[in-house]
Amino acid sequence: MMDAIHATYRFPPGVDAAREAHIIAVGQTAGTWDERWNLRSADLEKHLGKVIEVRSLEGGGSEAVVAFPAVNAPEGVGTLLTMVYGKYSLSGLSRVVDIRLPENWGIPPRFGIRGIRKVAGVQDRPLIMAIFKPSLGLSPGDLAEILREVGDAGLDIIKDDEIMPDIPGCSAMDRVRACRPVIDAVGKKRPGGGSLLYAVNLSGSGATLLERARALVAEGANALLLSAPAYGFSVLEALASDPAIHVPLFVHPAFSGASSAGKGHGLAWSVSLGILPSRSGADAVLYPAHYGSLPFSQADERQVAGELLRRDVLPVPSAGIHPGILPRIIEEYGHDVALNAGTGIMDHPMGAGAGVRAFFEAFERYKNGDSFDPGDMPDGPLRVAVEKWGH
Amino acid sequence: MMDAIHATYRFPPGVDAAREAHIIAVGQTAGTWDERWNLRSADLEKHLGKVIEVRSLEGGGSEAVVAFPAVNAPEGVGTLLTMVYGKYSLSGLSRVVDIRLPENWGIPPRFGIRGIRKVAGVQDRPLIMAIFKPSLGLSPGDLAEILREVGDAGLDIIKDDEIMPDIPGCSAMDRVRACRPVIDAVGKKRPGGGSLLYAVNLSGSGATLLERARALVAEGANALLLSAPAYGFSVLEALASDPAIHVPLFVHPAFSGASSAGKGHGLAWSVSLGILPSRSGADAVLYPAHYGSLPFSQADERQVAGELLRRDVLPVPSAGIHPGILPRIIEEYGHDVALNAGTGIMDHPMGAGAGVRAFFEAFERYKNGDSFDPGDMPDGPLRVAVEKWGH
Repeated sequence: MMDAIHATYRFPPGVDAAREAHIIAVGQTAGTWDERWNLRSADLEKHLGKVIEVRSLEGGGSEAVVAFPAVNAPEGVGTLLTMVYGKYSLSGLSRVVDIRLPENWGIPPRFGIRGIRKVAGVQDRPLIMAIFKPSLGLSPGDLAEILREVGDAGLDIIKDDEIMPDIPGCSAMDRVRACRPVIDAVGKKRPGGGSLLYAVNLSGSGATLLERARALVAEGANALLLSAPAYGFSVLEALASDPAIHVPLFVHPAFSGASSAGKGHGLAWSVSLGILPSRSGADAVLYPAHYGSLPFSQADERQVAGELLRRDVLPVPSAGIHPGILPRIIEEYGHDVALNAGTGIMDHPMGAGAGVRAFFEAFERYKNGDSFDPGDMPDGPLRVAVEKWGH
Repeated sequence: MMDAIHATYRFPPGVDAAREAHIIAVGQTAGTWDERWNLRSADLEKHLGKVIEVRSLEGGGSEAVVAFPAVNAPEGVGTLLTMVYGKYSLSGLSRVVDIRLPENWGIPPRFGIRGIRKVAGVQDRPLIMAIFKPSLGLSPGDLAEILREVGDAGLDIIKDDEIMPDIPGCSAMDRVRACRPVIDAVGKKRPGGGSLLYAVNLSGSGATLLERARALVAEGANALLLSAPAYGFSVLEALASDPAIHVPLFVHPAFSGASSAGKGHGLAWSVSLGILPSRSGADAVLYPAHYGSLPFSQADERQVAGELLRRDVLPVPSAGIHPGILPRIIEEYGHDVALNAGTGIMDHPMGAGAGVRAFFEAFERYKNGDSFDPGDMPDGPLRVAVEKWGH
């Protein structure tokens, strides 16, 4: 196992899994192999994949596990995907449901959960995270004003909306310049002594992405957001390996549905949002929470989180997060999770600062074992939040 | 149209397309937008998407066209995909079947069809292209020997298998060093005076991809192959914009099935293999030919090729290509196409050189209007090829 990469493929009923697995094991490694090359057979065999298991699934269909020599994909998620699924993906016949890699394969998080906790100065509770809303149309000054409000209330992390590009007058650089003084000001008041993290959305052409990231960090950006499934995990690898980009990297799941929202082909969510980012340098990964409106099951969420936690990557279940849901999240995750609310903070009837305070109130009530029934609560942000969004 | 990006979404029967299109137009641009920001409504409106058409499809289902302000995705395929499909992709409810961009959006090919013709010294016929087979397991010396054989026979382009990584003893650099002298030697004999192109497979971690590409070109690589769907189109953008990487870029479709092999979600093939690479600097794009074993329809092939030709990108229909099929390809494509054969050259019973000569023979017979019935042919490579693979 240590020097092999095991990929598991799921096939629908009616597909001959043993035959397909053989096609994968040969076609994705040595390719065609004819008599002319028998003299070289020892060299070719070193690179050949092996079918190590074919099993029928209850409820129909089947799975096959193929072992690839690790030397065939020594590094890089792009190389891994090309080997495991590359040309074979065109057939649409299978879904990659798992990839098992050698322990030291890929790029570990530079910060991860422990590093983010250290930077934020938060050890003994979940991290509280917000999203700038609305997205396009606000000025850097508007964003700084929002940031001061949520920062004063004790927020740990904020992120841009992932659709926030570099627009004239509100580029990522403009946003960093407007928000960095706020980060410095609210940092002085943080009880744990750390910094409010602002994950600035990195966008644009691959021609200048790295350069932009370096410039943002040099200007004071203390975290970056990348939609790695849309830009490519290679970009994440480049960011995570660059000594000048010494800030936590937050991965947004935008575009991952293209490969994972189907059932019969593509990549399982645990692969696209768990295994791949955690092997390419992500420090934190956002993914849909099953509480939200997206068709994301609790089982998928649990698998994604499991893959992230295994590599010390911060899980950030998102969409549908509001203060009343805090007890359920902590019961599922414990403290190693970011509670990431968009509207669940920004649309609080008493304002975004109250939206943050409602989360802290919720955490205190949860610790004390207090009821989340609004009738049992004192007036204040949490009660208002629970009355609006439930619990 | 000129300052907007139009994306077309296809919905299955039972989905309220008008409602979903509205969710896309708002959710993928300004995001939530509540009363607090009414003062900023002019700023937000500049960025808001608009539903410009909703239509029912014969046979069920529907399509909607959403116009996005181009300023929301000024550059970069990653940014484009995040805007058009990003978070919405997670719902799995729609397939992106078209994206219309302003004419000057993105990175045009540096070489394209005309540039590749110039480098190869071939003007008045399709380009003949081969693939090194088998893939992993051959030594750089083996590859150089194969290259001499096909190069002497007049081959225009050869590529690595896309699964060929940097393996010890046969890294991309080792392959370039072994093959460059052969390229120089056979180049002297080419009638048109150009060079045999060898598209070396670029692989590895994003941390070093660009550096590797520069080193390969500096060492004499005269073309590169990138599985852009697996590594990310951002990597292609970076290669295409780098002044040190002044060689044609060939895109392999590996992993594109993850986003495109389904029917109900993801990206249409014309998007993933036509529109995206042709806007991120590809000079040539490989995709399945409908003659081959993959479930790729003639309509899909025609759409992909159309998108490429519109931007002067060389179409390279692949899989199932052999000399007997040349008349059908020329009738579909004319001369602006690469005839890319893997086994169709390498497994020719008389050897790989004969495999190449069979294509030239086929082109002569086609031009002269001669029959492709093997009984009507003289002995030789073409007849042997047609007897083996048909016509």
